[in-house]
Amino acid sequence: MSLLVIGSVAFDSVETPFGKVEDVLGGSATYFSASASYFTDIKLVAVVGQDFPEKHVRFLKKRGIDVKGLQVTDGKTFRWKGRYDFDLNQAHTLDTQLNVFASFKPRIPEEYKDTPYVFLANIDPVLQLEVLGQVKKPKLVACDTMNFWIERKLKELKEMLGHVDILTINEAEARELSKESNLVKAAKCILSYGPKAVIIKRGEYGALMFSDSSVFSAPAYPLESVFDPTGAGDSFAGGFMGYLSNVDNISDRYIRRAIIFGSVMASFDVEDFSLNRIKNLTNREIETRFRAFKKLTHFEDL
Amino acid sequence: MSLLVIGSVAFDSVETPFGKVEDVLGGSATYFSASASYFTDIKLVAVVGQDFPEKHVRFLKKRGIDVKGLQVTDGKTFRWKGRYDFDLNQAHTLDTQLNVFASFKPRIPEEYKDTPYVFLANIDPVLQLEVLGQVKKPKLVACDTMNFWIERKLKELKEMLGHVDILTINEAEARELSKESNLVKAAKCILSYGPKAVIIKRGEYGALMFSDSSVFSAPAYPLESVFDPTGAGDSFAGGFMGYLSNVDNISDRYIRRAIIFGSVMASFDVEDFSLNRIKNLTNREIETRFRAFKKLTHFEDL
Repeated sequence: MSLLVIGSVAFDSVETPFGKVEDVLGGSATYFSASASYFTDIKLVAVVGQDFPEKHVRFLKKRGIDVKGLQVTDGKTFRWKGRYDFDLNQAHTLDTQLNVFASFKPRIPEEYKDTPYVFLANIDPVLQLEVLGQVKKPKLVACDTMNFWIERKLKELKEMLGHVDILTINEAEARELSKESNLVKAAKCILSYGPKAVIIKRGEYGALMFSDSSVFSAPAYPLESVFDPTGAGDSFAGGFMGYLSNVDNISDRYIRRAIIFGSVMASFDVEDFSLNRIKNLTNREIETRFRAFKKLTHFEDL
Repeated sequence: MSLLVIGSVAFDSVETPFGKVEDVLGGSATYFSASASYFTDIKLVAVVGQDFPEKHVRFLKKRGIDVKGLQVTDGKTFRWKGRYDFDLNQAHTLDTQLNVFASFKPRIPEEYKDTPYVFLANIDPVLQLEVLGQVKKPKLVACDTMNFWIERKLKELKEMLGHVDILTINEAEARELSKESNLVKAAKCILSYGPKAVIIKRGEYGALMFSDSSVFSAPAYPLESVFDPTGAGDSFAGGFMGYLSNVDNISDRYIRRAIIFGSVMASFDVEDFSLNRIKNLTNREIETRFRAFKKLTHFEDL
């Protein structure tokens, strides 16, 4: 199957206790696509400015990503600048320049409209809904969001959630969206908005998936070197949706495996700045780490 | 096999967002013993004052706990007063009255000295070492500690760690003890002090075990109602050591199961104040929750 993603393609400047980078390739749709490209065919919808270098487009194409939906418009590409301290779970935004993103109107190319798997990365929920209106009966729609939209467009966000199957969201944002401090209650509240499942991302503590009939807990991989958490959530979503699109099966057993593949991709992402680690993985490396997750969590039943 | 524990028996006054209790039964050795008593024979070494009511002793005996090592001396029983806010991972100590604990000299009854499994709950590392000097070649020794001793008796703590097999420790304290923010590095550092394994307790995020040859991640059970986290770490240790003493096997596969049994007992403990939830469990309830942990974490290998 194939997988459509709409989100941001950006330049990131990031500082962590272990180093800094400036104007490197970033953006939610970029991380998502690169990660998912190991599993399935990707169709990318995003916008960049005239300053977006050809080498980045070549990289996306090299990963087999269909970039017909990548609009190039007058102006500068979206830029994000952030810092992480030793608590790598918490990003501190230093500067956001929306640039061409400010007036972005997503247009889904005609040949994308039948894509069965759709991921709406973290953008304005109004745009997320607009995209959903353009695709024809997808088999599975997942989305992400953030505190910015919870605080500014709660009504639109809730409406959008009525149209998606799965929400991926950070732990603190799940609490903020539901106004519940207890995570089980928060998940139940979010499910009442419409999604069939919610995946709560907990950074170095892994992820928790709640649906009406199942709860699944996945750890994060204990890494000795974590350089830069930027893109971990989108790499997770890419592995998750990429695997589901690949197997074309959304039953609980495949959802669980997909969450582990998501965790695998996130664990690679944080090992280096930008997409440096996830741009050149082998299938063997991905499978080896999947098996390491199995070993990490395995215990014998009674 | 049987299991010796040395630690505190105390009165706790606790306030959480969900209620408050005053002068209820608490203490590390109490939680540990009650939890472990579902799995194995317990020998308790601790001290209380003249104010310690007979009903609490009757409760311990009713759970089959051997209280010959429970000294009753002139003075008042150890008292702790604490508060938890909505972030239930963080206890705020409001008052500590050591009372009879200030001059406690542990005396291990003669018939306790051959006990093969030993747990040194969180007390002064000097006392922990003194106890170790009194028992004869135990098969497995585990201990707990806290920031208080890391900050005041680091030298003695490190010496004590050279004599134990397993350390259980909170995540923040593992970082403090090792001076490493990365948890994998922190664990390696702690293993270099002597223990063959370290179990890092992460509250609602579960536990991580590191040894030279194995890493194991266990989640916490996602509960809709968490009333009072007091005693969760000691209930964990009780389930962990109780199970190992029961099966009398300390190979990796049993260590992993023991960590799940510890997580099971901690998950019951936090459901109510004091020992209210863990004082009257059935084996069936314990096994059912163990299986729920299996379901919570299960995914198919490749």
